[in-house]
Amino acid sequence: MGCFETLEAIRAACRALPPGDERAAEAVWARQRVLTKPPGSLGRLEELAAWLACWQGRDAPRLDRVEVLVFAGNHGVTARGVSAYPADVTAQMVANFAAGGAAINQLARVAGAHLRVVPLELAAPTRDLTQAAAMDEGAFLAAVAAGAEAVQPDADLLALGEMGIGNTTAAAALAAALFGGGGERWAGRGTGVDDAGLARKRAAVDAALARHADVLADPLRAAMALGGRELAAILGAALAARLARVPVLLDGFVCTAAAAPLIRLDEGALAHARVAHRSAEAGHGALLAALGQRPLLDLDLRLGEASGAALSVLLLRAAVACHNGMATFAEAGVRDRE
Amino acid sequence: MGCFETLEAIRAACRALPPGDERAAEAVWARQRVLTKPPGSLGRLEELAAWLACWQGRDAPRLDRVEVLVFAGNHGVTARGVSAYPADVTAQMVANFAAGGAAINQLARVAGAHLRVVPLELAAPTRDLTQAAAMDEGAFLAAVAAGAEAVQPDADLLALGEMGIGNTTAAAALAAALFGGGGERWAGRGTGVDDAGLARKRAAVDAALARHADVLADPLRAAMALGGRELAAILGAALAARLARVPVLLDGFVCTAAAAPLIRLDEGALAHARVAHRSAEAGHGALLAALGQRPLLDLDLRLGEASGAALSVLLLRAAVACHNGMATFAEAGVRDRE
Repeated sequence: MGCFETLEAIRAACRALPPGDERAAEAVWARQRVLTKPPGSLGRLEELAAWLACWQGRDAPRLDRVEVLVFAGNHGVTARGVSAYPADVTAQMVANFAAGGAAINQLARVAGAHLRVVPLELAAPTRDLTQAAAMDEGAFLAAVAAGAEAVQPDADLLALGEMGIGNTTAAAALAAALFGGGGERWAGRGTGVDDAGLARKRAAVDAALARHADVLADPLRAAMALGGRELAAILGAALAARLARVPVLLDGFVCTAAAAPLIRLDEGALAHARVAHRSAEAGHGALLAALGQRPLLDLDLRLGEASGAALSVLLLRAAVACHNGMATFAEAGVRDRE
Repeated sequence: MGCFETLEAIRAACRALPPGDERAAEAVWARQRVLTKPPGSLGRLEELAAWLACWQGRDAPRLDRVEVLVFAGNHGVTARGVSAYPADVTAQMVANFAAGGAAINQLARVAGAHLRVVPLELAAPTRDLTQAAAMDEGAFLAAVAAGAEAVQPDADLLALGEMGIGNTTAAAALAAALFGGGGERWAGRGTGVDDAGLARKRAAVDAALARHADVLADPLRAAMALGGRELAAILGAALAARLARVPVLLDGFVCTAAAAPLIRLDEGALAHARVAHRSAEAGHGALLAALGQRPLLDLDLRLGEASGAALSVLLLRAAVACHNGMATFAEAGVRDRE
């Protein structure tokens, strides 16, 4: 769904975001107060049930249709020696997703989610962001639209993730543009670069920030100059889900950075989204703080592929099962507190 | 399984603990290194797969038979006004467990686990620990044996939890006896006492520590004087599982405190156990530090009932699915790092 044919169309959408269903959220909180447990004792599971209800517009949240979307792209900045893996691994991993052999295949199955992988012009990497804008406007808008069109507006939950050798460099540069600081603050080891690789990565981020200094104040132009197709697709998918009021789980560092331009366009643009986990990637903590997000899991994951988002679906299933399945004090004949 | 008829039998068991299967754990690590992901990028999921393999004695860990055991007991210390709920709620919640209306019923179902609730002489509360030893030796050993006998030695995983109005006071006193400090350090709000209730709880812990000062150096006698039947049963179950090499998930504050005397008897006595979550109960952080445990989840839970342990089963299912189901680099034709 969604069709963002111009940058202005994206900005206009962010000025006309629909509210969540606060009445449904309040109905969840009212029920939580009479379920057979001390008030608040299910902690974040209670808040998660209310959040799902708010964006699903249902008093009794459900997870019958959970979609996992993984976008894949290639990056010209890999020529700078910023990754521990060669760029052709992106396409090889897309084939691995199709064959069912990757982590996300197993995790989506355990989570009871439908997995769809969307490769984005893997044969045409983005330009090296230290030398030129990663994408021109047409390429950026096409990727945003591809992301938006992949969203099923009747899904109960959407988990977003990515695959792309070199994309932690792009994500670090974009985070720096949006929230300040440079390569030292935002670049980490990604899939596992050594010290020399990390130094090259930080230098690439700083060079990109210097080259594109004139567009950094514009969140969308920063995403165009510094990001990548899979990052732009995540932005488009997150926005389309926001418009359709589909709750979203964002995966780790790259995915969070990819969606972050939206909150610079409107502070409520990610109200429907939760960051699934705290990535082991160095810059994620600062990114979470900038977005005011406390992730659901902290398991030292640094894989991407929506792996942390798929894991978090399991927690949401637990939250929904408790909310819908527990007895009230009155039903169970349990005395409430005095 | 297990039969601990004397305190000395428990101590003797802790002097003759079987090792885990380090060869199976190493086989897991060897496979993890060639699965289609950067090494270590699945974070704690990799370690969890190795831990399960180590205690299951299998290169390919499995979770076909997952047992959740919830022990329930009543506490004379409730006469001191230490809980927000009346003591008869323990039995009412046991009935709620039987009827399927509690949180743990929903969570065990989502986790694909078999739930068994073991009430321990609910009509005969332990004595008020500020006035006398909570249990005599016979009552303590009977509860330990009940816990041990509830363990299925062929289970793939055992999740332990408890229910008992007043038992965070008992757990706080036991933690203080084992690791130092008093009511201020270890007593929290439990199911939700107000400030006056918290003050009474801290005073009860301090009074109990003073009254039983002569036995506090002995972990088992401390558990007898300060604990409760459900805490003793958890100790028995954790030890029986250790002897049978069944991996164990400990739930929150009360459950962790209940098992903690074992590591004072032998530092490897909880090598087969992981603490499932960081409870919102005030003393849990200090207890986790004392045990050297980093919990798997941190969701502000403070319910007990094995709720956090059941949630963590979901993470273990994900770890096992990735380990057993992912393709290797060679199988998938994906280039490994240079």
